[in-house]
Amino acid sequence: MINAAKERWDILTKPPGSLGKLEEIGIRLAGLQGTVFPKVEQRAVVVMCGDHGVTEEGVSAFPSAVTGLMMQNFANGKAAVNVLARQMNCAVHVVDVGSRVEGDVPGVLSRKVRMGTANLAKGPAMTKEEAQQAIAVGVETVERLHTQGVQVVALGEMGIGNTTPSAALAAVLLGRAEWIAEAVGEEQAGSKMSPDECAPSASAENEAALLQLVGRGTGIADEQVLHKARIIAQAIAVNRPDANDPLDVLAKLGGLEIAGLVGVVLGAWERKMAVIVDGVIAAAAALVAVRMEERVKQALFASHLSQEPAHLALLQEIGLEPLLMLEMRLGEGTGAVLAIPLLEAACRLVSEMATFADLGLDKP
Amino acid sequence: MINAAKERWDILTKPPGSLGKLEEIGIRLAGLQGTVFPKVEQRAVVVMCGDHGVTEEGVSAFPSAVTGLMMQNFANGKAAVNVLARQMNCAVHVVDVGSRVEGDVPGVLSRKVRMGTANLAKGPAMTKEEAQQAIAVGVETVERLHTQGVQVVALGEMGIGNTTPSAALAAVLLGRAEWIAEAVGEEQAGSKMSPDECAPSASAENEAALLQLVGRGTGIADEQVLHKARIIAQAIAVNRPDANDPLDVLAKLGGLEIAGLVGVVLGAWERKMAVIVDGVIAAAAALVAVRMEERVKQALFASHLSQEPAHLALLQEIGLEPLLMLEMRLGEGTGAVLAIPLLEAACRLVSEMATFADLGLDKP
Repeated sequence: MINAAKERWDILTKPPGSLGKLEEIGIRLAGLQGTVFPKVEQRAVVVMCGDHGVTEEGVSAFPSAVTGLMMQNFANGKAAVNVLARQMNCAVHVVDVGSRVEGDVPGVLSRKVRMGTANLAKGPAMTKEEAQQAIAVGVETVERLHTQGVQVVALGEMGIGNTTPSAALAAVLLGRAEWIAEAVGEEQAGSKMSPDECAPSASAENEAALLQLVGRGTGIADEQVLHKARIIAQAIAVNRPDANDPLDVLAKLGGLEIAGLVGVVLGAWERKMAVIVDGVIAAAAALVAVRMEERVKQALFASHLSQEPAHLALLQEIGLEPLLMLEMRLGEGTGAVLAIPLLEAACRLVSEMATFADLGLDKP
Repeated sequence: MINAAKERWDILTKPPGSLGKLEEIGIRLAGLQGTVFPKVEQRAVVVMCGDHGVTEEGVSAFPSAVTGLMMQNFANGKAAVNVLARQMNCAVHVVDVGSRVEGDVPGVLSRKVRMGTANLAKGPAMTKEEAQQAIAVGVETVERLHTQGVQVVALGEMGIGNTTPSAALAAVLLGRAEWIAEAVGEEQAGSKMSPDECAPSASAENEAALLQLVGRGTGIADEQVLHKARIIAQAIAVNRPDANDPLDVLAKLGGLEIAGLVGVVLGAWERKMAVIVDGVIAAAAALVAVRMEERVKQALFASHLSQEPAHLALLQEIGLEPLLMLEMRLGEGTGAVLAIPLLEAACRLVSEMATFADLGLDKP
């Protein structure tokens, strides 16, 4: 099917290869859907929500309560992802897989595995069983979308603090955990320190190294980034995850919404649905899923390049190149939803363009 | 208005600045349209068509006759730009400002200034008067769109051979003409040589230098790129354009469709319409317009980063950053049309997102 799709793209009225990544997208969708003329008419963004015990370490610019407020905002249709999804004719499914919100939020599917994770700087974020339950929520969600005819799923998430577990997952899965521990200073990595105490002790060189994986999240300052890196190093030192056991890494250093997205990826791939990865949190989930089942790569498409530094490293490890350069760092699935028109464009071009034969020409 | 727009973006429910370039786009559109809540609901792509005498030098992988065939393809609604424009709810206006097609093509607006340019490797591509007439066609076209309520215009073009004049314009307007002449070899630059004769004489270093401005166009091979660079150096040497007189540079080294796009940019800016620049040809036209009237920059937005090497240099000179990284090199306005949803997204986000006050929160 992939060869047939390549042949089709080469007889369309354009110089061969001149539509660049749109051709690649069209060919990959053809392989996934088993047709030269794939479709992405039915779209959904799944916004998995969860809270994070590690917020008590002061790693985020916003308090945990904002997770719940944003869930209401999603339910009201007034968050950024809702606006973009309306534009792209994409349904929004918000799932509470582990927020600290008491009771249900109308308009949000309640599938709470637990009330937020534990503080990963002190022990495992959750048990393996809880991680598996959250994965099952993702699989179940995407199964429901499949029965509704959805062809493409955008990965979205909300969880104050969740760039910290994402960078921790990246550090371990990309084999950079020791390197982070070195950069923050081996001795200090195991002890809890305030931003003020940490800031002066690290060299400019080490700070630059850290900024390759640890970012500003919702907008923390330089000294807080260093603190965040120390918390990540501490979490890895305390939990000692087995890098060859993705479920172990996910349970110890991940988040409930991240595990939910792992399930969305696994379930979507099984059902031949395309998955658009969003920013650093979705990319961390995607890499966990890839480590569980290498073949899910077939279903994965990149969207934008986030401002979070671990994002590019995660995408490269999966083998994806970002399509949009918008300097975004919002999450929610906003970048993934913005990429939907590009997948649609690939589908429309291969279906609707004239061939050279239509113009009375031979192949170029 | 720009300050009011910035304030609006900062009270929306997201970390400040987290929507990156979408916020910049929204703020710039606000400045252009004079409202915090700009709109890009009415869109059009103008596809200016023209032929090029320089094709007799063997600078393109396709014969000139393809320009006319593609004009029919546009009129039939079956070229890539038509497909993408349908998707983006964007009208397509095809204007023949200088093809070699005899008579009219139904569905194409005939405003032919002359039957293709002269060979710029031997003398001026056209007279200044002809360049001005072609500019006037662009201004007239965009005036008509303005009366129809169009708010955003994508720059499209068709003209076999037109990456050669575009790279020549870039070389002169970016002050790299001497550097190209050096790279291809001063002595040979003035004489006409076949690809075979040229290939062995240039060093790998010089070839790399040339590839910074001269590209493969529709898909020529390495040795043809060097030949193309020699033709460009020869054209500059023969014509000696005055880099401080953009009309002189345009007339001597440009193309009729390029001049038409210069008019579209100038006319759109006067009417406060946003202009989305496409690939290297549109960017060359945009820089000519900027050199004629610096303030047109207010109206210009970038779309993708083309595979043509002069594209990035032209965008940087204008002060634009590409939004889409799709490795495209087709022209027609395809990249510009693909960027329309990003401008629309900026408009929708600022209009439809909740504010922090809506969630009962102070400013972040």
